[in-house]
Amino acid sequence: MKKIEVISKWLKEKNTDVAFITSKENVLYLTGFDCHPHERLLAAVVFQNADPLLIVPKLDQEDAKRSGWAYNIVGITDTDDAWQMVQQVLEQRVANIQSIAIEKEHLIYERFTALNRVFKNPTFVPVEEAIQASRMQKSESELATMREAARLADYAIEIGMREIAEGRSELEVLAALEFELKKQGVSKMAFDTILLTGANAASPHGVSGNTKIKKGDFVLFDLGILVDGYCSDITRTVAFGEVSAKQQEIYQTVLKAQLAAVAAVAPGKTCSEIDLTARNIIAEAGYGDYFPHRLGHGLGISVHEAPNVTSVSQTVLKPGMVFTIEPGIYVPNVAGVRIEDDVVVTENGVETLTKFPKELLYV
Amino acid sequence: MKKIEVISKWLKEKNTDVAFITSKENVLYLTGFDCHPHERLLAAVVFQNADPLLIVPKLDQEDAKRSGWAYNIVGITDTDDAWQMVQQVLEQRVANIQSIAIEKEHLIYERFTALNRVFKNPTFVPVEEAIQASRMQKSESELATMREAARLADYAIEIGMREIAEGRSELEVLAALEFELKKQGVSKMAFDTILLTGANAASPHGVSGNTKIKKGDFVLFDLGILVDGYCSDITRTVAFGEVSAKQQEIYQTVLKAQLAAVAAVAPGKTCSEIDLTARNIIAEAGYGDYFPHRLGHGLGISVHEAPNVTSVSQTVLKPGMVFTIEPGIYVPNVAGVRIEDDVVVTENGVETLTKFPKELLYV
Repeated sequence: MKKIEVISKWLKEKNTDVAFITSKENVLYLTGFDCHPHERLLAAVVFQNADPLLIVPKLDQEDAKRSGWAYNIVGITDTDDAWQMVQQVLEQRVANIQSIAIEKEHLIYERFTALNRVFKNPTFVPVEEAIQASRMQKSESELATMREAARLADYAIEIGMREIAEGRSELEVLAALEFELKKQGVSKMAFDTILLTGANAASPHGVSGNTKIKKGDFVLFDLGILVDGYCSDITRTVAFGEVSAKQQEIYQTVLKAQLAAVAAVAPGKTCSEIDLTARNIIAEAGYGDYFPHRLGHGLGISVHEAPNVTSVSQTVLKPGMVFTIEPGIYVPNVAGVRIEDDVVVTENGVETLTKFPKELLYV
Repeated sequence: MKKIEVISKWLKEKNTDVAFITSKENVLYLTGFDCHPHERLLAAVVFQNADPLLIVPKLDQEDAKRSGWAYNIVGITDTDDAWQMVQQVLEQRVANIQSIAIEKEHLIYERFTALNRVFKNPTFVPVEEAIQASRMQKSESELATMREAARLADYAIEIGMREIAEGRSELEVLAALEFELKKQGVSKMAFDTILLTGANAASPHGVSGNTKIKKGDFVLFDLGILVDGYCSDITRTVAFGEVSAKQQEIYQTVLKAQLAAVAAVAPGKTCSEIDLTARNIIAEAGYGDYFPHRLGHGLGISVHEAPNVTSVSQTVLKPGMVFTIEPGIYVPNVAGVRIEDDVVVTENGVETLTKFPKELLYV
């Protein structure tokens, strides 16, 4: 079922007249148009039966047409009375709007009061859950884009490993890595790349800085690439020179937990089962207190989206869901290791999108 | 007057009980704490008479203490009932809250309804204008930070010029520029660096890509550096090899307009006077249709903030205001030139923060 139809059907079920969706992530998801409106109004408007609308800043109208959106596009200039136009174009489709579905965690006070004014105090209904449920299950074309983003993330790790050298600082290796990526035309990172070494990597909140890489340290890369609006997210930890038996034990424990969690993914299981698969292995090895975060998070248009892969999440896995599996162990002043892949739930089990090797690699 | 006192005084004038300020930019401005709470609640709470409060995610509480904030800090965990805590800590200071000043362009629907619920439908008052008026006039310590950000922007242009070479693409020069900056420890850009050449530079909406730089082209750099939460923003256009008489004429017209606008800055003038000083020079030279944007924008914690330097802005300049002056001429398939400085209004006139040379430079 097409994305717009999912929302139309949900509006009927909820007996709600219209969905007025203003976050750029959800507008991209529903319309295919990747817009950065800054403080200007952007909205995908979905009705129960009438054709949907796309409302954009006038200066983005031509781009919106080129994006392939098949329905009406309304362009608003900075001097237009935006809310009068909104009222007019919505009422052309539904005469007496009494209820509006909005993003309760995105719609700002000013717009809420404007909708209240022009539609005379309608009922507001949160739309997040409906869109989230739809966004969680990726289509084949979304998966194709995410496979490409994951392939480039693998490539970035490969490049990053080549840039590690004695005496280079975290920031130097990070800069060299991004420089090589840009030279290859890969310039859109999904988030600020993290590169940590030694004691920094041993903190789950470490920040890349001027620490020099030295023999016997782990080097942790956490990065992602943005392709056509979709993110990848990978973490690899590699050894620079010989590492101690303790460091190796920590690495192998994380790897065992990660592999077991990936293997556990299948339709019908809950997120908590996957989290606990990894968490129990780490706890049994005596490192339970050193794995202080959730196993993973959903991935797609946002770097962090549903499902939330925690020890208590009862979300049931369905084919098409994409999320990260990223257990870590951080022992202060000893070692920090995290291994992260992006996986998609398939009809029968799991497909791993990121494919860079996971056995302990030495630079 | 201290920033918090400005808001307390404004609350008294507006007969409003409390200001509940949640944007990270305004929280940084009022408290000095630079927090990135993502979806979690962050708030600076200011009262008419009682001591202010800082509400932060629990995991940021230690950082908040270290930031130098002298008043109470409330840490909220993910499992706390955040709004019950908000109600409790606010009512400890003011028993019966009936009116709340909020950021109408930032407060999201969910938080608006939560405030409505716990404080029983208070009156909401927009606080933006009060904070904006205060943020517009930079203190000496803010100006010191912005001078450093501007100095680094000058340095970035110097590095960028060195990286221009025949056959290199826009993205390659951009990557090399950022690589060199990171090696020098300057890694926080205020926004995505723009580097345009040839026909791309001749569009005010050009995007850096794989176009190769060739002799006879202008190369336009637009970049900024972030220092302790404050932005700089500079544009320089340089010639690669010999450029035509027409290109030189366009450059000299922009330069003349830019110099005249900078020289026109003084307390008591309006923003529109400054804009029109540049705009008239460009129009008289016959390029009026090729200067399609405002002269500049305020600069500080945000890359774009008040004042808005347009042909119609009646904002009166006062000492301490910082804004950009960035006229441009974009003639399709001929040349695109923009020259941008950051300036501060002084008691007697103007100080230019960015100091990189502006005469036409040849690489």
